[in-house]
Amino acid sequence: MDQLSRVFGALADPTRRDIVARLTRADATVSELAAPYDVSLQAVSKHLKVLEEAGLVTRTKDAQRRPVHLEAEVFDLVNKWIERYQRQAEQRYQRLDALLDELNERDTRNSTEGTAS
Amino acid sequence: MDQLSRVFGALADPTRRDIVARLTRADATVSELAAPYDVSLQAVSKHLKVLEEAGLVTRTKDAQRRPVHLEAEVFDLVNKWIERYQRQAEQRYQRLDALLDELNERDTRNSTEGTAS
Repeated sequence: MDQLSRVFGALADPTRRDIVARLTRADATVSELAAPYDVSLQAVSKHLKVLEEAGLVTRTKDAQRRPVHLEAEVFDLVNKWIERYQRQAEQRYQRLDALLDELNERDTRNSTEGTAS
Repeated sequence: MDQLSRVFGALADPTRRDIVARLTRADATVSELAAPYDVSLQAVSKHLKVLEEAGLVTRTKDAQRRPVHLEAEVFDLVNKWIERYQRQAEQRYQRLDALLDELNERDTRNSTEGTAS
């Protein structure tokens, strides 16, 4: 699977988004991350694995704590994709607007010519 | 499921992202959308259903063609989420930088005092 699909997939879950949100403030261990949720440590580990496979988080090799670290630059992947197609959609509406303006103008011209002849 | 999870989930598939990309240029019918892919019309309809449930596309009631229309403003939902946590991550690094600067300064001051006494 491509990374963009993995990133979107990883962010498609509210618990995983919450984990990402908390990691923007500070690195945290799995048990620190699990504390506020009513789920098992295993469930949180699974969520972290999905985030890790998407490149959104990494774990340091520090054997005791192994804190989870957010790789915030991955957000740029999503940003780039969204921005590109958002711009393309806007340009389309601008073209439609311009076309409508032109049609309106032509209409006005035609009806003026109509009264003149 | 919340809409943001649906939107991220909908965009977690390359074919669905490609459909969205094409719809930024023009509305299209299901068969027009299916044409370039090596998949059944049913498979494309399923993808459209996922996009529809996420609010990313709508279909007009025009019984004959029922063209699919992109609701590009839904991109803003994703943008807002990403921007918020991107900003939070940046602020964290700025705080860490400031802290490092302070520690460095203190170090320099201490070693200067050390040589003075």
